[in-house]
Amino acid sequence: MSTGDGTTLDDYTDRYSAALRGMTPSEIRALFSVANRPEVVSLAGGMPYVEALPLQSIAGLVSEVVASQGAVALQYGVGQGLLELRELICEVMDLEDIAASAEDIVVTTGSQQALDMVSRVFLDPGDVVLAEGPSYVGALGTFQAAQAEVVHVEMDDDGLVPARLRATLEQLRKAGRRAKFLYTVPNFHNPAGVTLTEARRDEVIALAEEYDLLVVEDNPYGLLGFEASPGRALRSRSESRVIYLGSFSKTFAAGLRVGWVLAPHAVRDKLTMVSEAQVLSPSNLTQKVVAEYLLKYPWRDQVKVFREVYRERRDAMLHALDLHMPAGVRWTRPAGGFYVWLTLPEGWDAKAMVPRALTHKVAYVPGIGFYADGDGVRQMRLSYCYPPPERIIEGVRRLAGVIGEEAELRETFGPVLGQAPARTDGRTHSRGTEAPDPGTV
Amino acid sequence: MSTGDGTTLDDYTDRYSAALRGMTPSEIRALFSVANRPEVVSLAGGMPYVEALPLQSIAGLVSEVVASQGAVALQYGVGQGLLELRELICEVMDLEDIAASAEDIVVTTGSQQALDMVSRVFLDPGDVVLAEGPSYVGALGTFQAAQAEVVHVEMDDDGLVPARLRATLEQLRKAGRRAKFLYTVPNFHNPAGVTLTEARRDEVIALAEEYDLLVVEDNPYGLLGFEASPGRALRSRSESRVIYLGSFSKTFAAGLRVGWVLAPHAVRDKLTMVSEAQVLSPSNLTQKVVAEYLLKYPWRDQVKVFREVYRERRDAMLHALDLHMPAGVRWTRPAGGFYVWLTLPEGWDAKAMVPRALTHKVAYVPGIGFYADGDGVRQMRLSYCYPPPERIIEGVRRLAGVIGEEAELRETFGPVLGQAPARTDGRTHSRGTEAPDPGTV
Repeated sequence: MSTGDGTTLDDYTDRYSAALRGMTPSEIRALFSVANRPEVVSLAGGMPYVEALPLQSIAGLVSEVVASQGAVALQYGVGQGLLELRELICEVMDLEDIAASAEDIVVTTGSQQALDMVSRVFLDPGDVVLAEGPSYVGALGTFQAAQAEVVHVEMDDDGLVPARLRATLEQLRKAGRRAKFLYTVPNFHNPAGVTLTEARRDEVIALAEEYDLLVVEDNPYGLLGFEASPGRALRSRSESRVIYLGSFSKTFAAGLRVGWVLAPHAVRDKLTMVSEAQVLSPSNLTQKVVAEYLLKYPWRDQVKVFREVYRERRDAMLHALDLHMPAGVRWTRPAGGFYVWLTLPEGWDAKAMVPRALTHKVAYVPGIGFYADGDGVRQMRLSYCYPPPERIIEGVRRLAGVIGEEAELRETFGPVLGQAPARTDGRTHSRGTEAPDPGTV
Repeated sequence: MSTGDGTTLDDYTDRYSAALRGMTPSEIRALFSVANRPEVVSLAGGMPYVEALPLQSIAGLVSEVVASQGAVALQYGVGQGLLELRELICEVMDLEDIAASAEDIVVTTGSQQALDMVSRVFLDPGDVVLAEGPSYVGALGTFQAAQAEVVHVEMDDDGLVPARLRATLEQLRKAGRRAKFLYTVPNFHNPAGVTLTEARRDEVIALAEEYDLLVVEDNPYGLLGFEASPGRALRSRSESRVIYLGSFSKTFAAGLRVGWVLAPHAVRDKLTMVSEAQVLSPSNLTQKVVAEYLLKYPWRDQVKVFREVYRERRDAMLHALDLHMPAGVRWTRPAGGFYVWLTLPEGWDAKAMVPRALTHKVAYVPGIGFYADGDGVRQMRLSYCYPPPERIIEGVRRLAGVIGEEAELRETFGPVLGQAPARTDGRTHSRGTEAPDPGTV
């Protein structure tokens, strides 16, 4: 990071920690400044559509919290979080068949803090973490900050492939290594848009037992199934093997930064201690706001409103993709959540195409950021959560134009930058029901 | 941490990180459950007296924020924090003669997160951090989590002793080591209750230049001077050597968890990256609430209200200490902030006396938690921030009773637990204007 010639741009480089030197800014965040321009249709960000919330009602709730419970709401809290909120969180998890005690919950400053806490409790530099390929970029960031080695496990349209998980565990065992945990998003995966089947959930838990594996189940989207609920949570199948992460960012409001982690008792103690070192306690105000909302507002109906909003947008995106995408492009068909994962023909580079896409006023996130190992080159994540349906359709139309142009360029001039030639072998995978590209195991 | 006999109470011990194994629960937090009983006068916690806030006005502000800016307040934010708040923070810092650009500020989830961010940006296991002896327990916790070695630098009634700082820096240099930074609370120190003099501030900055030392200046109490403002901030004397930490927890409301860090440009980038890995972004709601409060409410007057509340309580505590404390006990006389630091006679153990104090319905924090090296055995921290004056007086009266009893016991039976005999050599240090016990360098 030093310029090496004495004229450092950063006078502090010789003081930074080893962990910091291993961190790189996120591919997604680097995009935001341009992608947020109003003329650009952003299929990049994962912002929930908070405009669907009843702002006047929430304003009333928040005001009530401060006026009648201000002495607590404005005061320091406890590291584990408010008991009243933890009890209500048990009711939320009950919707996904999770039986839990408020005692085993730690409230967090969003799920991101939960990920960071889990990383700090378990990870030493060089430790192995298993994660789907692709995987959530924010989780990869915390594993990277902990200097862990992420080993990706292949997915297909039914989610994580248990046979691949077994093969990876076996390989590690043979090498005398052990994964500290498996990180997985079983429902409406970010970014892959796929969901782990019921049968595979049992298989994953059986493998966890067989290989003495901890599972970190990250479930921000579980209540946002469009046609049906996803399978029962992994946590409902095993209390001792699973650390469960939940969030109000997608079912209520991301700006509150309230999430939680449910963990076996001993682990919960450690997580609380780590959280205290990070933030002392989560905000009592935002915790009280969530508690009041869960108590006083028909929040289950609001979740249904969100589901309908996102279902309509998912439909718009899939329809537009079916209509406009040229041959050789495939994508996943999510049954919930926020994301479609799109795969370009062999040899293409989604990141290299970003500037042209922005010129055409459409933004997406290149797939490479969702892998720790350089995979994902010809993939991109498309979000349908935030823009209204007509903008999504327009965005996909623009993106199809960019992809069509790229195909023409490649046919005329051959592949650029020394890449393999573009495949022009027809539309065999075009319906997008296939798997995202397998991660390297 | 394993029980070692196969019947583990904690089945996960063989998975925890090395950093976690080095962490221990805080002495302060372990006390809270008992200290919070209504019959106990707690001189233990550092809770600000938020009851002095105009709850109805804040309820109105908060409601307005959600109703008119809900689409932003309830949405994800950016890692660095909202620009409008960062600009207002510059006005707050201007009160302490700090000229800063909003560009160089990162908003944090309370100052604790700022401490953790600084630790992660700079500290590797085994690194040296300098800190006053005693030092803020929450800071020591983050340094411990980073597996750093804390070297304490002696204080007296004028704050950190520059000659001791020089000696420590010199000693490190001779040993071929370098401190990653000096952590200091120059104003109304927690827990020592002393303030760095104007002349010493210049000396500290001169030493930082001479020894190429970074300074982390933690200033939560700077606006809470009872008789006068403390000296100008260290940051106002050097932009490149000082990382400055500020907080709204004591001047507005701790329950919002809004603090900030002001750092040289290159460091600011790193801090933002670390914060994104920890919490993605601070809460937009609580940031908007603080911004609205600073814009619309006469907050400078509210700071004056807080000052008067705490001044009256400080006076009550010092008066009661003068009146009730037996010979051989001494304490500091804070000119602002929340804390008095009390020193028992040679050979006494403040931690061992906690159970008896609780029996007498008074709580304090034993000094040992404010040192990383086992010092502080005969010290305690007394907080006057939260209980009303009459309770403070009663609490000090009870504490004096406990100390008197201990003195009698020691005279009758000799020192317990093999400690050195209690000194009964009169009241030579009883006025408490002397230094807190020097930390071990």
